[in-house]
Amino acid sequence: MPDSVLVTGASGFLGRYAAREWSRAGCRVVGIGRDPWSESEWRTWGLSEWLCADLSVETLSAIAGEPDVVVHCAGGSSVGASFHAPEADFQSTLGTLLSALEFIRLKAPAASLIYPSSAAVYGEVARLPIHEDDPLRPASPYGTHKRMAEDLCRSHARHFGVKVAMVRFFSLYGEGLRKQLLWDACLKFFKGEASFLGTGEELRDWLHVEDGARLLRIAAGHAGTACPVVNGASGVGTSVRQVLSCIRPAFPEAPSLSFTSVAKAGDPSAYVADCEKAFAWDWRPSVDLEQALGAYAEWFLQERR
Amino acid sequence: MPDSVLVTGASGFLGRYAAREWSRAGCRVVGIGRDPWSESEWRTWGLSEWLCADLSVETLSAIAGEPDVVVHCAGGSSVGASFHAPEADFQSTLGTLLSALEFIRLKAPAASLIYPSSAAVYGEVARLPIHEDDPLRPASPYGTHKRMAEDLCRSHARHFGVKVAMVRFFSLYGEGLRKQLLWDACLKFFKGEASFLGTGEELRDWLHVEDGARLLRIAAGHAGTACPVVNGASGVGTSVRQVLSCIRPAFPEAPSLSFTSVAKAGDPSAYVADCEKAFAWDWRPSVDLEQALGAYAEWFLQERR
Repeated sequence: MPDSVLVTGASGFLGRYAAREWSRAGCRVVGIGRDPWSESEWRTWGLSEWLCADLSVETLSAIAGEPDVVVHCAGGSSVGASFHAPEADFQSTLGTLLSALEFIRLKAPAASLIYPSSAAVYGEVARLPIHEDDPLRPASPYGTHKRMAEDLCRSHARHFGVKVAMVRFFSLYGEGLRKQLLWDACLKFFKGEASFLGTGEELRDWLHVEDGARLLRIAAGHAGTACPVVNGASGVGTSVRQVLSCIRPAFPEAPSLSFTSVAKAGDPSAYVADCEKAFAWDWRPSVDLEQALGAYAEWFLQERR
Repeated sequence: MPDSVLVTGASGFLGRYAAREWSRAGCRVVGIGRDPWSESEWRTWGLSEWLCADLSVETLSAIAGEPDVVVHCAGGSSVGASFHAPEADFQSTLGTLLSALEFIRLKAPAASLIYPSSAAVYGEVARLPIHEDDPLRPASPYGTHKRMAEDLCRSHARHFGVKVAMVRFFSLYGEGLRKQLLWDACLKFFKGEASFLGTGEELRDWLHVEDGARLLRIAAGHAGTACPVVNGASGVGTSVRQVLSCIRPAFPEAPSLSFTSVAKAGDPSAYVADCEKAFAWDWRPSVDLEQALGAYAEWFLQERR
């Protein structure tokens, strides 16, 4: 069990849950990131300290000393934005990761790096479910940068002995996520709309962020210079229609779901993970999708009020 | 035929020859890089202008306007240094490339990018000769960063329509190269030493930098969003012993060659390229290895005097 944990990007969606997960497990957790964040808020997420700063070897060293684990949640987080501003996504994903890896190499060589990667590294897939050894053919700058990030982790592991474990998250969701399908759907329902691009039969593999945070913590026990990578998903495909049907009831004024049947450009029709590698770490998702989607809709409505 | 060419890192070993090659072909060539460089010198290499500056969209735009071709010779150039300072190699290789790609995307969308990559992307090879489609398993931070650089080129080609061609150079040599085997050997011979690590039977695939510069120019005619990549080499393996034997005669005071028979860590025993793809572009190396090695030794001695 690690004593001290540094979470980069701890004010972000996944970062908050990662901080809380490790805090609840009894670790001292400190965080760093670019967002100003009030102490009353970061304390509720289990942080002992928060430093609002750009990531560098110096700032990481200042906030964390020599942590046992670095959970690198900082990084680009939008496929769409990476098409408009590839340089920003590159710097955000790879610049910060390089700082984290160099911090470990130079200042905290005993620390493990836990890296949340993304299913976007797979891009166009030839078969389902998607296995970790399948070819990586990213279909966006974001996916390319995440794949490069994995390469960078492997390079530091191999050449400098940095211990790493990586989790490729599929459709991570939960309270706090203010973008992507669920958020957009809530916004639409709230405005009395219910028409969506696509057929509604597109399959996605959903994972609640609390299950994701727990998987990151379990991954720390497997970090090593062999750089293991596992899919972070449920192994179950759920259609967009099913997911939206679980949210809509929270919005009594929303009309029935309708779909344009025009596929969104670049949107794969099915994205479902093979989860045997993560399951072999004795991890299983525990959050019920239907209930959690209802809770997400309630959270959205509370945010709006 | 392009009219105007921008060479980044034009004061470097390959950059100078690339500038001269395009200049001799009748193009207006401008250069940019971090080194201070006297006008009398850069003029001899065919440059019309030289800007000593860090690469950014702004500086590239300032020196080059809207060039037809960008030859991106800037970047890390030492496998050894990448082990000691991986962050510097990363920034030097990937930071500058990102600037060049973004410059094209934002300011010069008609320009082609010619990227000199490296055989270091192959790393440990399972068969010879090495083909462009063989697996890439880089064995150094430098090799990893070059592989990431290729990925970044492909990403900008695919998502933003940037036309790219890449050449993976093997053992590039010629007057002006102040490092690696040939340089170290001249230094040793000059001091009256002649003992080398390894067996002397290690095979390398040598290419004179003038042939390399010509291949870059020919590559510009094949640049496209499919991002073709070719090996830049001769297709012939020459042993370290043979190569050193061509240099030694210039140093009458040097003793006979001897080898420790202890392999250098991480040094592959043979590295020879399959050159069919480059040959299919109607390019052939034209410089005679033995003569050019003699000329290299003469150049070294002139430098010393």
